[in-house]
Amino acid sequence: MSSMTRKTGINESGGMFAAWNYPEVSSLVYMGLHALQHRGQTSAGIVTSDEEETYIRHDLGLVQHVFDSKESISPLKGKHGIGQVRSASEHDYKENTNIQPFMFKFQNRNISVSFNGNVTNAYTLRSELEKLGAVFQSDSSAELLVHLICHANGDTFEENLQEALAKITGAYNFMLLTTEGLFAISDEHNFHTLEVGKLGEDQYVVASETCALDLVGASFIQEIPAGHYVKINDEGIQNVPYSKNVETKIEPMEFIYFARPDSTIGGVNVHHARKNMGVQLAKEAPAPSADIVIGIPNSSLSAATGYAEEVDLPYELGLVKHQYIGRTFIEPTQAQREVKVRRKLAVVKEIIKGKSVVVVDDSIVRGTTILHIVKMLREAEAKEVHIRIAAPMIRFPNYYGIDLKSSDELYAARYDLETMNENFGSDSLAFLSTDGLVQSVPFSGDYSDYDLSLSSFNGDYIEDIGEYKSSFDQKLTDIQKIILKENN
Amino acid sequence: MSSMTRKTGINESGGMFAAWNYPEVSSLVYMGLHALQHRGQTSAGIVTSDEEETYIRHDLGLVQHVFDSKESISPLKGKHGIGQVRSASEHDYKENTNIQPFMFKFQNRNISVSFNGNVTNAYTLRSELEKLGAVFQSDSSAELLVHLICHANGDTFEENLQEALAKITGAYNFMLLTTEGLFAISDEHNFHTLEVGKLGEDQYVVASETCALDLVGASFIQEIPAGHYVKINDEGIQNVPYSKNVETKIEPMEFIYFARPDSTIGGVNVHHARKNMGVQLAKEAPAPSADIVIGIPNSSLSAATGYAEEVDLPYELGLVKHQYIGRTFIEPTQAQREVKVRRKLAVVKEIIKGKSVVVVDDSIVRGTTILHIVKMLREAEAKEVHIRIAAPMIRFPNYYGIDLKSSDELYAARYDLETMNENFGSDSLAFLSTDGLVQSVPFSGDYSDYDLSLSSFNGDYIEDIGEYKSSFDQKLTDIQKIILKENN
Amino acid sequence: MSSMTRKTGINESGGMFAAWNYPEVSSLVYMGLHALQHRGQTSAGIVTSDEEETYIRHDLGLVQHVFDSKESISPLKGKHGIGQVRSASEHDYKENTNIQPFMFKFQNRNISVSFNGNVTNAYTLRSELEKLGAVFQSDSSAELLVHLICHANGDTFEENLQEALAKITGAYNFMLLTTEGLFAISDEHNFHTLEVGKLGEDQYVVASETCALDLVGASFIQEIPAGHYVKINDEGIQNVPYSKNVETKIEPMEFIYFARPDSTIGGVNVHHARKNMGVQLAKEAPAPSADIVIGIPNSSLSAATGYAEEVDLPYELGLVKHQYIGRTFIEPTQAQREVKVRRKLAVVKEIIKGKSVVVVDDSIVRGTTILHIVKMLREAEAKEVHIRIAAPMIRFPNYYGIDLKSSDELYAARYDLETMNENFGSDSLAFLSTDGLVQSVPFSGDYSDYDLSLSSFNGDYIEDIGEYKSSFDQKLTDIQKIILKENN
Amino acid sequence: MSSMTRKTGINESGGMFAAWNYPEVSSLVYMGLHALQHRGQTSAGIVTSDEEETYIRHDLGLVQHVFDSKESISPLKGKHGIGQVRSASEHDYKENTNIQPFMFKFQNRNISVSFNGNVTNAYTLRSELEKLGAVFQSDSSAELLVHLICHANGDTFEENLQEALAKITGAYNFMLLTTEGLFAISDEHNFHTLEVGKLGEDQYVVASETCALDLVGASFIQEIPAGHYVKINDEGIQNVPYSKNVETKIEPMEFIYFARPDSTIGGVNVHHARKNMGVQLAKEAPAPSADIVIGIPNSSLSAATGYAEEVDLPYELGLVKHQYIGRTFIEPTQAQREVKVRRKLAVVKEIIKGKSVVVVDDSIVRGTTILHIVKMLREAEAKEVHIRIAAPMIRFPNYYGIDLKSSDELYAARYDLETMNENFGSDSLAFLSTDGLVQSVPFSGDYSDYDLSLSSFNGDYIEDIGEYKSSFDQKLTDIQKIILKENN
Repeated sequence: MSSMTRKTGINESGGMFAAWNYPEVSSLVYMGLHALQHRGQTSAGIVTSDEEETYIRHDLGLVQHVFDSKESISPLKGKHGIGQVRSASEHDYKENTNIQPFMFKFQNRNISVSFNGNVTNAYTLRSELEKLGAVFQSDSSAELLVHLICHANGDTFEENLQEALAKITGAYNFMLLTTEGLFAISDEHNFHTLEVGKLGEDQYVVASETCALDLVGASFIQEIPAGHYVKINDEGIQNVPYSKNVETKIEPMEFIYFARPDSTIGGVNVHHARKNMGVQLAKEAPAPSADIVIGIPNSSLSAATGYAEEVDLPYELGLVKHQYIGRTFIEPTQAQREVKVRRKLAVVKEIIKGKSVVVVDDSIVRGTTILHIVKMLREAEAKEVHIRIAAPMIRFPNYYGIDLKSSDELYAARYDLETMNENFGSDSLAFLSTDGLVQSVPFSGDYSDYDLSLSSFNGDYIEDIGEYKSSFDQKLTDIQKIILKENN
Repeated sequence: MSSMTRKTGINESGGMFAAWNYPEVSSLVYMGLHALQHRGQTSAGIVTSDEEETYIRHDLGLVQHVFDSKESISPLKGKHGIGQVRSASEHDYKENTNIQPFMFKFQNRNISVSFNGNVTNAYTLRSELEKLGAVFQSDSSAELLVHLICHANGDTFEENLQEALAKITGAYNFMLLTTEGLFAISDEHNFHTLEVGKLGEDQYVVASETCALDLVGASFIQEIPAGHYVKINDEGIQNVPYSKNVETKIEPMEFIYFARPDSTIGGVNVHHARKNMGVQLAKEAPAPSADIVIGIPNSSLSAATGYAEEVDLPYELGLVKHQYIGRTFIEPTQAQREVKVRRKLAVVKEIIKGKSVVVVDDSIVRGTTILHIVKMLREAEAKEVHIRIAAPMIRFPNYYGIDLKSSDELYAARYDLETMNENFGSDSLAFLSTDGLVQSVPFSGDYSDYDLSLSSFNGDYIEDIGEYKSSFDQKLTDIQKIILKENN
Repeated sequence: MSSMTRKTGINESGGMFAAWNYPEVSSLVYMGLHALQHRGQTSAGIVTSDEEETYIRHDLGLVQHVFDSKESISPLKGKHGIGQVRSASEHDYKENTNIQPFMFKFQNRNISVSFNGNVTNAYTLRSELEKLGAVFQSDSSAELLVHLICHANGDTFEENLQEALAKITGAYNFMLLTTEGLFAISDEHNFHTLEVGKLGEDQYVVASETCALDLVGASFIQEIPAGHYVKINDEGIQNVPYSKNVETKIEPMEFIYFARPDSTIGGVNVHHARKNMGVQLAKEAPAPSADIVIGIPNSSLSAATGYAEEVDLPYELGLVKHQYIGRTFIEPTQAQREVKVRRKLAVVKEIIKGKSVVVVDDSIVRGTTILHIVKMLREAEAKEVHIRIAAPMIRFPNYYGIDLKSSDELYAARYDLETMNENFGSDSLAFLSTDGLVQSVPFSGDYSDYDLSLSSFNGDYIEDIGEYKSSFDQKLTDIQKIILKENN
Repeated sequence: MSSMTRKTGINESGGMFAAWNYPEVSSLVYMGLHALQHRGQTSAGIVTSDEEETYIRHDLGLVQHVFDSKESISPLKGKHGIGQVRSASEHDYKENTNIQPFMFKFQNRNISVSFNGNVTNAYTLRSELEKLGAVFQSDSSAELLVHLICHANGDTFEENLQEALAKITGAYNFMLLTTEGLFAISDEHNFHTLEVGKLGEDQYVVASETCALDLVGASFIQEIPAGHYVKINDEGIQNVPYSKNVETKIEPMEFIYFARPDSTIGGVNVHHARKNMGVQLAKEAPAPSADIVIGIPNSSLSAATGYAEEVDLPYELGLVKHQYIGRTFIEPTQAQREVKVRRKLAVVKEIIKGKSVVVVDDSIVRGTTILHIVKMLREAEAKEVHIRIAAPMIRFPNYYGIDLKSSDELYAARYDLETMNENFGSDSLAFLSTDGLVQSVPFSGDYSDYDLSLSSFNGDYIEDIGEYKSSFDQKLTDIQKIILKENN
């Protein structure tokens, strides 16, 4: 079910995978998407092409549900392909008009597109195009890009592509499969990176994370630089800069919780970064009275072990994640609401009882999980509960491709540290500093010009937030106002 | 799975239903589509709208599968809606890019479109639009119309709509749900009619057949005239002519087998027309030696009873249709191929044995069913088998919305009457004459200017067949050449 | 979901098919069950066996749903098999404990059983067995028979089988697949017959109806006589009488509506019998003022054409059955309840309007369908509506394998003819006489000792109704009391 | 698909949950089974009862699939219930005849039964019962127990139950829901324990693990002692000894890998025991040259952290488990077989590269996983790979309810330590000693008479292995013969 009234673009987070010149490419793209499943569970899709034709299949559901049989994948013929897994945000619509990749046709040219990110001037660009007769079927910026290309004035496809990209602001990655070849594009800040790998001779893959390269057995050859696109066709692979105004500012949420721990971004392994965050957090905020350190499976295990090593306390399995969670139709009554969290996580009472516990979490967004966990630890008769968060306070909406746009959702935008500690019922509460975060992600070598985007923590947006600006200004909480004042 | 290379438009047959100003309109549209299910079983979809938003759900499958729960239909809010059931042709693609209705957005206007028919200059129009920057996502002429509207030069939506329709040739019905109201459009020949009904005060429905009006309890008020559209909005209902070049030529296949027997087209009830065809056939081709008349359930029952009455022979249930046919995964070996037809139809041996049987069928397309039936009747020890077909020989491709485009598929385009009789193993074979067909559909009163399109029988196309012309000319069979020469 | 408290046996109606010595027998049994699908839609199952092993698959659903892939049928190996389709009655339980066939094991002997019918002393026999230590898992009389066999005192399996059958009263057919061979059993009255056919040399099939023999290409060789079983094994086929107290009394509902029209019972083709009933009804109750005769598709078409021929009136397609009925989730409000019948049947208004109509139905059970049809005909402006029922009034519960056990369900057990006519709103109402019914089913030749069971019409039960007796006596309606008095 | 030829009983491992006197008990049992899902994923079922009736639903699939809607669970009425999740072994049959719980009826008594374990004289007992006329429908020992009860000679149900239990050898837990109350039974060795908890006044639950008590909010009150059953009815809860020959010998696989880490058995928390095993292993087999310790998620995390702490090396996340594993239809070619393991586990190359790695696993059964992991670590350029297994070598079949019956499956039954190390390609390989295992599970207090069953390690079976004896004796490997000789 879809609707079409909106005033801004939509955030489209997910994962993308492309392959060039691989026989029966659809199975390879399938495996690549499988490795990226954690980046989006709402829909999945693959487009492939051979000399003559383009083939598509995309639907709501996990990769393994959309492609659940040989019959579902074998019609996707050809040697080139792109695929996507996608996560529908609350701001998004739940039905199928926005399922990617998209396939378009114009002037005898087939073009298939995948998009991740958040184009901050999407609505404005769209309105301008509509005045020229353009017709839209979705809210996706994938469709927007194609219209911009078709209405550009260049002589070649690439000139038109570059003209189109010049108009777009925000955070974005595009993958385009065209008759000219495969194009993989990163924005001027490289908020979210794309990784290029090689299989055999003249066989390339591009993916949102290196873990997908590993799974398909490709060797990593490069990350696409900010403001560049990579063009792959029968003549080989080429890095094309399309903007001079580049400044790499990786989205730190990738390191904090979004990317898989075995992936590497800007030369920094994600698990390593997380462990560093735990170590750094331990330095900044030790818990002298504590007996043990526990993490929240599976997301904060890296940080928790780092914390435990640094403070030299035993790291214990105080919380167990249920292996078979799934959905349940049982609607919790007030009394059963407890059960909902308990279905996912169980406290190992024998470990907790009588202990002073440090519980390390990766971040606090809405604050609901940590609230329940403190309660469960108290019930298991923990002597003390010290919360340590291996990320800074997330106090401002994210407009760069992470689905956190409303201040209402952000616990730390509404409460100060002391109040949070009180609300959670913890004995102490501490967050990693932004400096600590930056030190935990030590870009170096080829990537020494890399930096992190800190706007979610300090409200200082490095890239035009376009159509979101007025809403941002109007909805500032008292805490946000204070932070912004401090920063100036 | 879809592909995008094609040189001509696609035939899009199906059924459409629209409703204006009805509370919780989605359930009403659902019931309307249910009544039209026989017109298309490949996909189903509904678009609805309220003051602010437009809602859509469409998928592959029967109406009852696409809308299989309250949850599937209740999100389709609002008082106005259009829906469609659709049949994918062999020339069509089996995946979901062409599933209707479509929903588009331009210049702050939402527009939803359904289409039935065959636009014979679709590919040409599309190529022209692409040169202006238009981007297409499907092969459907529903999308084509919207692009034509958006690129028209009029001052109002209706001026643009009329400019767009003026460019289109072929057979078509469109339904458009827009902020200006509901538009239901018939081509200049009214090959396939649209029927308008009324529910309560200011509540209207439009459907491909009157049987859908009956099911939802609407009273018939008019058929949309050739070259007109009906516009329904808060100011009421209005008939708007958009072409002066009109000549009603109803597609006779609607009477012969496509429409439901309880529907009425141009004032003629379909069952009555079929019974007339049987009577007329009996007059033209009696079977003096016959003992009994049988039909092939369920399609030729009307014609068979007409034949039996006219020749005053008992009408018998010589063939029984299995109530539960469904699909089977068992792939017939050569020996089991017989089983395939026998799963659907059974001979009542006690009726057939020793009798001289007239078997009446509604038409012959590929000739496979009648071949098996003669064999089954012989096995049941029929003394004689006389085939009587209650339609003329279908000898030419249909370019006006019935899915019969290739001469290869048409048995009567490849064999003459004598050879067919020999091939089938029947004692005699006769078809209704085209004159007999015309007499069986006695348009009168308000509809006395109505006529039938006879091009499938005589190759004399009354409407431009556009992009199909060269293929038609190149693939003529010997028999087709003879017929065409006779006609000139 | 099942429960286990009951005081009487359960009626188990359905269809059975068995095959002996056919390679890959499971596909053959599948086809046989497919032909019998009309006899039961609740569950389906197949058991097969080879030299060493027995294989089973059974589940809720149609044949084509339970066996929906090669994978679902290919594990059923072997050359011998039995299968069943089953209809759960209201008195039955909707879950899977009663799904047939059953497979049992005792004393190194595998035994698989299917059952149709109603054992009228089931509860009593079961209680006796339980006292001997028997444990039951279902309510089915298939399980009951196996326990009786196991607790019998004979020396051989057949002695034990005969001892067991001697204890059972009521209407029953059993099929047993054992290491001794295939056994197909009919009760002493042969209420429901079993038909034996032959495929190749030493290849046999047994089915509930001859239409299943036809579909698999078997030639009919015999009907199992009352009080006999047929034993098929490597030594051939053998008719074994197990009771001297036999009197064939075919259940007339088989002819009236249950069996397929192309089947033959006791040498009488079912369609022929139905047409005879229509002819006979026309003789007994003509409708002098009528213009046309219509039937209710598809059940009363045979009778209606017979009626029309006898009164020499045109037989018209006044009611059309919707091809795609299916289930709908839309719960009818009071206003929409009409819609429910209209979804299945549509009136062809052009035929009905202004006409005096005879509508022929096959029988009246609850009276709800005919009530709606009269209303629909009135709305279509029929001048007169004359109901003619091609069966006698069903006034007494059926304890012999047809699912009509409660007098509350039987319209004719509660109202006299005049009141029914008034309630239905018809201009006249007539039923076939029981004499007329008997004459319509002219058993002859080998079957001249066959007769019909008339207890549903006159309350005169020819076979012990056992555990149902007290409930029957206590719940007699005034009309039933009058009939019973008249009969004595 | 089932077959019925077998010579021994079947191993039936799984998890059970029962509840007494809880309103709408089915939801509670559902939650309990959910917590036990890791114990069996083949089928799930629930039986409930109220005063009058018994209700059942069971099917193949996970708990959340079998009970996937309110409609699937709400018909299970009543206050008392038992449920089971079950794992089909290779020795078992994959179809639905063995799905538990079972529901039986005899002598007006309803009895529902769940069983876990392995009755080592099942086939013998069954043959004896069959000679008395008993008929079986499944291979389950749940059905066997009910037949034994029905053929016992006691005066009361409990006398009969005790007489039945006296005949059974092997490892077993039963739960019976009867009109006398709820019975939960443990065998004479308590190989697998049952845990009793309390909710409100007179509300009891029994579960295979304490984690299920925790999830439903019940407080632990006792473990059922060896050779006892607990009887719960309206008069309260009662421990009944039924054998004097008791000797508690907990199955160590529960501690090693089967039970959830938050469960407690015999007073010993499972995670604690696992961590102890890691510590003990580190003492017995340190790896002096190692840089880091890694575990295999999720099964060996507890042991690995224990090992790391003891040797004071960093515990690292060297292997990552994919969050979305699911099934894939892609059949691996030889080249893609690698992919299969990689889909589940990924190496974090940045951690492994250049390091000497200790990889801790919980146990070695077939040896396939560790083989692939060593290969993956080598590819990631580990300097050294030292395998440490936190359990003794599993060298003998398990006949006590763990699904490891064939010596062919046991890697350590075929190879000695040195050969295994060579085969795996590791730099060193060590297993925990049996003494080390025993010390890691420090039963104390109320449980100081508890011990572990070590037969899987040393072949010294403490309980009659009945029908399995001859197969065991005949199939001894050379290594097994040596071990057995050493032990005597």
